[in-house]
Amino acid sequence: MKAIAPRHDAFGQQVWTYFRRHGSPAEIVERDDGFVSFSQNTAWYFGDLRRWSPSERRAIRFARGRSALDIGCGAGRVSLYLQEKGLDVTAIDNSPLVVKTAKERGVRGARLLPFEKIDRLPAATFDTVVMFGNNFGLFGGHARAKKLLKQLHHLTREGAVLLAQSLDPYQTKESAHLAYQRRNRRRGRMSGQIRIRIRFNQFIGPWFDYLLVSAAEMSEIVEGTGWEVDRFLTEDGPRYVAVIRRV
Amino acid sequence: MKAIAPRHDAFGQQVWTYFRRHGSPAEIVERDDGFVSFSQNTAWYFGDLRRWSPSERRAIRFARGRSALDIGCGAGRVSLYLQEKGLDVTAIDNSPLVVKTAKERGVRGARLLPFEKIDRLPAATFDTVVMFGNNFGLFGGHARAKKLLKQLHHLTREGAVLLAQSLDPYQTKESAHLAYQRRNRRRGRMSGQIRIRIRFNQFIGPWFDYLLVSAAEMSEIVEGTGWEVDRFLTEDGPRYVAVIRRV
Repeated sequence: MKAIAPRHDAFGQQVWTYFRRHGSPAEIVERDDGFVSFSQNTAWYFGDLRRWSPSERRAIRFARGRSALDIGCGAGRVSLYLQEKGLDVTAIDNSPLVVKTAKERGVRGARLLPFEKIDRLPAATFDTVVMFGNNFGLFGGHARAKKLLKQLHHLTREGAVLLAQSLDPYQTKESAHLAYQRRNRRRGRMSGQIRIRIRFNQFIGPWFDYLLVSAAEMSEIVEGTGWEVDRFLTEDGPRYVAVIRRV
Repeated sequence: MKAIAPRHDAFGQQVWTYFRRHGSPAEIVERDDGFVSFSQNTAWYFGDLRRWSPSERRAIRFARGRSALDIGCGAGRVSLYLQEKGLDVTAIDNSPLVVKTAKERGVRGARLLPFEKIDRLPAATFDTVVMFGNNFGLFGGHARAKKLLKQLHHLTREGAVLLAQSLDPYQTKESAHLAYQRRNRRRGRMSGQIRIRIRFNQFIGPWFDYLLVSAAEMSEIVEGTGWEVDRFLTEDGPRYVAVIRRV
């Protein structure tokens, strides 16, 4: 996915609206089978450590070194925390308004950069890579994940750690979700490879693949990419963070 | 609009989900320019008199006679009230699951009947017609409203009253709404003639026209149909109820 064009920056508009105190919008996610869901969670992108999910709070203790990369930084809740701890943080996102929000909130290293353009970042730089807020999903698919993990290996230094949150897609009883997963498998996609877009007022975001995986699936993806899962930090419900070590 | 097919009964699913205590879903409305809005209001379809909007509470005192017609009855909040007061209530809706909900809640006269099929109801029957919850909107458009008002004249008895709520579309500063209204006027539609559909989980409702009018526009529409606006009952905000008399 390229950087989002301003006229399609639905997620950015949602975050910006909250930031400018023009409201507390819901997040409306439309899946390509027509399923829509919404959550009243925009405030959450702005929350400090106490508001993070339990697995994120535990995982952040594994952050290390001098230099961090925050992938899909949103309004910068994780970057601000790491910056406060003294790390040099590069925070990337593909939404112009999200990056603007993060900058205005004080994230010095925020920049507009789509995930697949990370080869523009300097090699052998980062000690910690963070993908919180289910952002393992930004890997998008199986092959793309393997490729991007290899690129992340190249960008990181010896001893680096990757902290990535996902959501186990199999922990659902919702028949529409189970049917969607079956359809994915029939089409050669991963079960939890959801194709979604964000809607906000008149703004319609671009379609993109977001990859939800079980712990076993994540381990398989990480294998052979120069990374290795060290441990899974779970919490009540389907969310978890994997602590992944550079090998 | 015909009766909604069960597989497209998004609004019915939303109401039914709440009724069966499977959740308190938001209402997600998609307009044909891509604008989506949501409101956490499903409980409202079930509210007793204390939860009604101020103009509805004032207007219901104008209900009269023995026999009432509730158009777009939803979960039956108005029908239940009038039934309790001793009126014989016919409650119609074009959503199968909504009608089922109303019946299970005790609305004896609930039936699946689209508004444009009201010619199937017996002539010279009703003393009171209620269109609450912005349901003047169900008239859909200018010509259609005039035609249906004439049919309602035929179905009602001397001295009948029509209590219809609308929402003044001009009371907005939202640029997307103002642009939509301009587009409507350019296309020969009324400013507040919005084309919308309901989304609920995987259910996508049919597109339909919903007509929002100012008080002046409503007066013009009613003229020459055998009805006359007696008074407008306003409240804070754009909502109001018109008390309309059969002439």
